Amino acid sequence: MFNDNVPYKIYLSEEELPKQWYNVRADMKNKPAPLLDPETMKPIRAERLSSVFCEELVKQELDDTTPYFDIPEPILDFYKMYRPAPLTRAYFLEKKLGTPAKIYYKFEGNNTSGSHKLNSAIAQAYYAKMQGLRGVTTETGAGQWGTALAMACSYFDLDCKVYMVKCSYEQKPFRREVMKVYGASVTPSPSMETAVGRKINEQFPGTGGSLGCAISEAVEAATSMEGYRYVLGSVLNQVLLHQTVIGLESKAAMDKYGIKPDIIIGCAGGGSNLGGLISPFMGEKLRGEADYRFIAVEPESCPSLTRGKYAYDYCDTGAVCPLQKMYTLGSGFMPAATHAGGLRYHGMSSLLSQLYDDKLMEAVSVKQTEVFAAAELFARVEGTLPAPESSHAIKVAIDEALKCKETGEEKTIFFGLTGTGYFDMMSYEKFHNGVMKDYAPTDAEIAEALAKLPKVE
Amino acid sequence: MFNDNVPYKIYLSEEELPKQWYNVRADMKNKPAPLLDPETMKPIRAERLSSVFCEELVKQELDDTTPYFDIPEPILDFYKMYRPAPLTRAYFLEKKLGTPAKIYYKFEGNNTSGSHKLNSAIAQAYYAKMQGLRGVTTETGAGQWGTALAMACSYFDLDCKVYMVKCSYEQKPFRREVMKVYGASVTPSPSMETAVGRKINEQFPGTGGSLGCAISEAVEAATSMEGYRYVLGSVLNQVLLHQTVIGLESKAAMDKYGIKPDIIIGCAGGGSNLGGLISPFMGEKLRGEADYRFIAVEPESCPSLTRGKYAYDYCDTGAVCPLQKMYTLGSGFMPAATHAGGLRYHGMSSLLSQLYDDKLMEAVSVKQTEVFAAAELFARVEGTLPAPESSHAIKVAIDEALKCKETGEEKTIFFGLTGTGYFDMMSYEKFHNGVMKDYAPTDAEIAEALAKLPKVE
Repeated sequence: MFNDNVPYKIYLSEEELPKQWYNVRADMKNKPAPLLDPETMKPIRAERLSSVFCEELVKQELDDTTPYFDIPEPILDFYKMYRPAPLTRAYFLEKKLGTPAKIYYKFEGNNTSGSHKLNSAIAQAYYAKMQGLRGVTTETGAGQWGTALAMACSYFDLDCKVYMVKCSYEQKPFRREVMKVYGASVTPSPSMETAVGRKINEQFPGTGGSLGCAISEAVEAATSMEGYRYVLGSVLNQVLLHQTVIGLESKAAMDKYGIKPDIIIGCAGGGSNLGGLISPFMGEKLRGEADYRFIAVEPESCPSLTRGKYAYDYCDTGAVCPLQKMYTLGSGFMPAATHAGGLRYHGMSSLLSQLYDDKLMEAVSVKQTEVFAAAELFARVEGTLPAPESSHAIKVAIDEALKCKETGEEKTIFFGLTGTGYFDMMSYEKFHNGVMKDYAPTDAEIAEALAKLPKVE
Repeated sequence: MFNDNVPYKIYLSEEELPKQWYNVRADMKNKPAPLLDPETMKPIRAERLSSVFCEELVKQELDDTTPYFDIPEPILDFYKMYRPAPLTRAYFLEKKLGTPAKIYYKFEGNNTSGSHKLNSAIAQAYYAKMQGLRGVTTETGAGQWGTALAMACSYFDLDCKVYMVKCSYEQKPFRREVMKVYGASVTPSPSMETAVGRKINEQFPGTGGSLGCAISEAVEAATSMEGYRYVLGSVLNQVLLHQTVIGLESKAAMDKYGIKPDIIIGCAGGGSNLGGLISPFMGEKLRGEADYRFIAVEPESCPSLTRGKYAYDYCDTGAVCPLQKMYTLGSGFMPAATHAGGLRYHGMSSLLSQLYDDKLMEAVSVKQTEVFAAAELFARVEGTLPAPESSHAIKVAIDEALKCKETGEEKTIFFGLTGTGYFDMMSYEKFHNGVMKDYAPTDAEIAEALAKLPKVE
């Protein structure tokens, strides 16, 4: 059943692994809009950013002209622990669907943190270590990012302080314990350790917390402790840069076997996986060397690209972080409590927002029950149990493959499979038991959140 | 830091994967003792076994002369879904320990079932399908075997009926849900579906069940339903045969780079992983072509090799399965409720028992708190979070590496890493919180269980 001279899984040798990250901004005619300082509403200066973020990371964040950044040797060493991620030809899925399409996916879940987040976590930990810092702080919701950062900090012997949304801390103890195995301190947020945490606890006694609150606590902790900085797992340019290792590896594997995708699909929350996946291919498109269709898949419950507005907005609810121009539902938008926690973010990376606004990328939104049905089908035929976030891409890849079945076209479809669903079994249970619901915000809800966007000249 | 011209991970290409399983019994002078019929206490006939097990599997079970069995093409196809498992040079661990030893491990957890169990599950499902059966039944404790079997049955569209020890069913819902994703029916045992289940429920109202009881229910279900057979995940010769894919792949990867292990270490519960890991190397030793030290690692709480007796015993508490000659603590022995559920079995595969009795293999037992300390060290430096079972091998590999540090010897140590600890985070939590205890049975407890061994002439 394995034809076409393409192995079921393509592994690159260590020598073939990417040695540089690719900065797609260098090839963009319309650059992502600059970050704004929340105090002055003017483009933020590097010095201001450096009080919150590591210096090298600030440089990467602001550099929109350098096309390639060397990956430092210690990061390359660490990547060897779990990379290359195999590029897999979904022969079993194709057969099940009876499609003439050729389907490929890049699985990023074969590491203990279970997702692609580790690609940037190790880079951010490295630069923190090089700067001589004692540690870093961050927030985490369901825990994928926190777990990845804990692993990375453990490797470089850095202190890692994670503020975990309290309801997740209590209801999802598994990832919390993985973080502890890696020596991270995990604090349920809102806590009594920070001024902002105490304030929120006072205002809302017994609250389960929110990502916005956890960000504010992590930033306060980083800026109030000597030798600490704050790190973030998505949305930022630097994160997308590190994640290009996904797309570069995929492209190297494809080039080796003469594979050229027609459609490239990724799930989109803050945009870190999608940006990393598509960047090298988008670069070719921007330079006029090749053409591809790119599809961002977002949950119907949090449709920033498909129903949001392209405007400057706060990245966090506390409004302590710089403002970004992005497709946003408004920083006050509260998405429904769906089972793809990693996609519940009100905005989209400014880089991807610009590409989308320039019509270089498409976007669709999908219902979560359909996503879980696709996930289960995929798990049964391809073996890998996918995370709900990743399954958004599966759903649309299947849709496109079924269109090929109708038309008879032999398109090559490529999607990013960001992680495993090991820690999401309770969501699968709800799906099974038929108690999972779909949610879409009303136009009025979105309009209300958008009405509170900050005024920027 | 990666020297010696050996990559951090060695992946075989698809062409280099084993095409046959190796039957080490063919090279053993002293063959494992025959299975006995529990009714007659005489060597069991194939026809009797075939009422419980699939026909091809019965042949494999009883064949101690054929050295190689071809792996059927559909199983080879399925293996490609998650194999080759990488052979990893533990550079990071060596550095951390400061040992001159070279450490390698074979990680079998890179599949959704999370362990090596899938290697045999897919083979057993295949033979059941070839026989035209409707489905198979089995028991599962913590759920590794049940999960693997559910995946395998889903692939061949076979019905899969799992009796899961009731307390695990309730306390460990994650694996239960993975099985359901793969379409298996999971019944808490003791159930009211079988005569033996109803009887036990009557005798012990509210009982949490036991593996012995679940086996009895699964066997009853298989033999009372048309078109069903019972399958087992360890202990049997057929299972060890399928698991030799682990050792054969390891050996192929080592031969490719001229690596020759001095010591080969595996954890030992029923013996499926250990047998599969060491078989090809043991074959060389038996044929006088090479020499290796083999070390079986068992938990101090369930020390069948190190403190048991080599005698005929029942494989299950209900005494419905054939008797095996094996190192046993007595089928009535109740091991303490430790966190390595996969190693809580009263006996050891008869094949490994014979090798151990012939002094071809060593055995040690280790304390669980030391095992978790080794697991945590390993997770931090090598990235992979190991299952508690697998960590028994890690513990002894580290001990041997530290001996090399003392003596300055550059030994090559190789161990099997059977699975991930994703579903064992509550055990890690107990370790962290300092509430994990060590357990060793008293001499009197073991003597009491051994006194009830069946009388065999």
